[in-house]
Amino acid sequence: MSHAELLLLDLFVMFGAAKLLGEICERLRQPAVVGEILAGVLLGPSLLNFIQPDETLRGLAEIGVIFLLFTIGLEVKPAQLLRVGATASLVALLGVLLSFAFGFWYMKASAHPTAESVFLAAAMVATSVGITARVLQDARVLDAPFARLILAAAVLDDILGMIVLALVTSLTQERVHYVQLAIAAAEAIGFCVFIVFFGSKLVSRLDSTVARLGGKNPFFVLSVLLCLGLSLASVYVGMAAIVGAFLAGLALADYSAQWRLQESIVPIYEFLGPFFFVLLGLQVNLHALSQPALLSMLAVVTLIAILSKLIGCSLGALSLGVKDALRVGIGMLPHGEVGLIIASVGLRLKAISDQVYTVALLMSIITTLLAPPILRLTLPPSRRESPSPPVAASIPP
Amino acid sequence: MSHAELLLLDLFVMFGAAKLLGEICERLRQPAVVGEILAGVLLGPSLLNFIQPDETLRGLAEIGVIFLLFTIGLEVKPAQLLRVGATASLVALLGVLLSFAFGFWYMKASAHPTAESVFLAAAMVATSVGITARVLQDARVLDAPFARLILAAAVLDDILGMIVLALVTSLTQERVHYVQLAIAAAEAIGFCVFIVFFGSKLVSRLDSTVARLGGKNPFFVLSVLLCLGLSLASVYVGMAAIVGAFLAGLALADYSAQWRLQESIVPIYEFLGPFFFVLLGLQVNLHALSQPALLSMLAVVTLIAILSKLIGCSLGALSLGVKDALRVGIGMLPHGEVGLIIASVGLRLKAISDQVYTVALLMSIITTLLAPPILRLTLPPSRRESPSPPVAASIPP
Repeated sequence: MSHAELLLLDLFVMFGAAKLLGEICERLRQPAVVGEILAGVLLGPSLLNFIQPDETLRGLAEIGVIFLLFTIGLEVKPAQLLRVGATASLVALLGVLLSFAFGFWYMKASAHPTAESVFLAAAMVATSVGITARVLQDARVLDAPFARLILAAAVLDDILGMIVLALVTSLTQERVHYVQLAIAAAEAIGFCVFIVFFGSKLVSRLDSTVARLGGKNPFFVLSVLLCLGLSLASVYVGMAAIVGAFLAGLALADYSAQWRLQESIVPIYEFLGPFFFVLLGLQVNLHALSQPALLSMLAVVTLIAILSKLIGCSLGALSLGVKDALRVGIGMLPHGEVGLIIASVGLRLKAISDQVYTVALLMSIITTLLAPPILRLTLPPSRRESPSPPVAASIPP
Repeated sequence: MSHAELLLLDLFVMFGAAKLLGEICERLRQPAVVGEILAGVLLGPSLLNFIQPDETLRGLAEIGVIFLLFTIGLEVKPAQLLRVGATASLVALLGVLLSFAFGFWYMKASAHPTAESVFLAAAMVATSVGITARVLQDARVLDAPFARLILAAAVLDDILGMIVLALVTSLTQERVHYVQLAIAAAEAIGFCVFIVFFGSKLVSRLDSTVARLGGKNPFFVLSVLLCLGLSLASVYVGMAAIVGAFLAGLALADYSAQWRLQESIVPIYEFLGPFFFVLLGLQVNLHALSQPALLSMLAVVTLIAILSKLIGCSLGALSLGVKDALRVGIGMLPHGEVGLIIASVGLRLKAISDQVYTVALLMSIITTLLAPPILRLTLPPSRRESPSPPVAASIPP
């Protein structure tokens, strides 16, 4: 089979399995995204070993998660995000500080080298907003204050994560470049602030220009270019591509209805998004859990990761009341691919061992898998999406 | 830059360049698809050498052209295709016979070995329906009888091309497996006939089942799975994946409006499709044309390829009248990626030289590039899409 044919087979199996298990999860009142990740676990090395992820699947998954964050950004107005800015900073900062401190303390206490302790602690700092955003979107609570707070805090967390990664990377090189670090941080913060403050205004200028130029689907083309362009810009200033995609959505949010962006962007996400979540599952290798030493370390590390985020982020969000604060804490749990990226940098720099890398990888995946069902439980039942809509509703008039 | 970051950059540049040059072509009353291919030529080795196509870009392009043929199939009802079945068979058969005969005769006459002559002639047999279908769709004439005829003939051409490829491959192995060949041909024909005759009926059964099952976007999920599944099945019976995608569209055409498939499938094509056409352009290397010997051979081969398809296919379609017959002849010109595939098999089997491969490749691309503007010229002006719609039309109410 040629590469193109193998790709078709992979896509068919991944898409089908994701939708099937997603639907089963929905019926069990679990988030569909959990089913999609489980589809990956099922197809991956732990069980069926049917799909070997290659660069092409990784690329498709990357585009899928970019379009997820883009569609989520489209539903959020920058003003709403700015309103929660101060609280979000507190949430992000407390979560990062507690995670790093507890992570580092445990590693040092169990006699790991400093460099390794620093990298595992850094991997515990990460928050991947993709999963939480998807659960919030599926449950239709993206407009609730606590949901805005999670989104804002997760973006800030990515900035902090970038600073932490830059810091620990220079630590292992036994020389900290404080000036470079400050410049990188300033760039990332400046980029985010610029888009949040001026993105909408720039887009409103483009609106009349594009309308005057005409052409075929000009708003669709502009939106896709803005999404890809800001994702790229985000990478250039040292952050994850999904942060840029989310900011692009924010900038376009005011025009989302007028340009009918949801109608044209959501189908792209509906097709490509599942590949991202299946790929997350494909990276889980349950066989690694057969080593008892690894298993106990994993249990402790995961517990610390969960408690420090839960306590730190909830404390930061206490002004919303205890219930919403807890939701924020749970929403900030998934370490997702951001934790994996930090751990893999540590592995590349030979700062951490294969064993610690596996722990970091599994901790990232466990927090990612645990958060959605717990978060869903805390969401008000009245706003839960009905798991099986009446037949009439699914047939257009 | 990591692979994911490089991919983002490539996608941004390819999508932007394709849409920009496509829009310029539209304003010059040329098909947008020509602009998209030219964007690839511009970014490719001939000029800027900015993008090196890798497996990921090829994969995205493959999915893009699959969704193109799928959306085109959605606009065609099987009954309309069957009505032109007899004429389409004549068009396909005459085009294939003339192309092969003239191609083989020229190669033998200019003292090429038999195996090489056979392979170049086989590459001249191919018709790639993607480009023509796109031009017909852009010009909104997919419902005209000649357009139906082109689509039906192109599908038949793919079956004939598969038989020719199997035949010439076994010829080079100095043993023709007639039985295997007959089985392969029967499989391909049986597959197409089955979907055209029974596809719609099977889908109508699924309609009530899916509606009863409910779930989120069940019709979208079913359609994507059918598209990917039949593309894959098409590959398994030895044909191009796009034939299966087209057949999947056909099978769903009756439900396209009710399930709102155009709304959810077209955006996926709008995003991924340009990558296919840009990639076609990326494969052009104009530097190869600097060799005079190659240039003259290319000129003759291209002329033969064009004349034999034009004469053969137009003759077959004469029952539609001279004007429509000519349109059919022109619509069958693009050899596209199908010609490239046959030539590359010849190269792999060492049946043809690098030089002849380059000629086949360039002939495929030239016929692909020439057909759209010529076809557009022959389309009735009243049905041409207005190149720059009034501003009011592009702003939703």
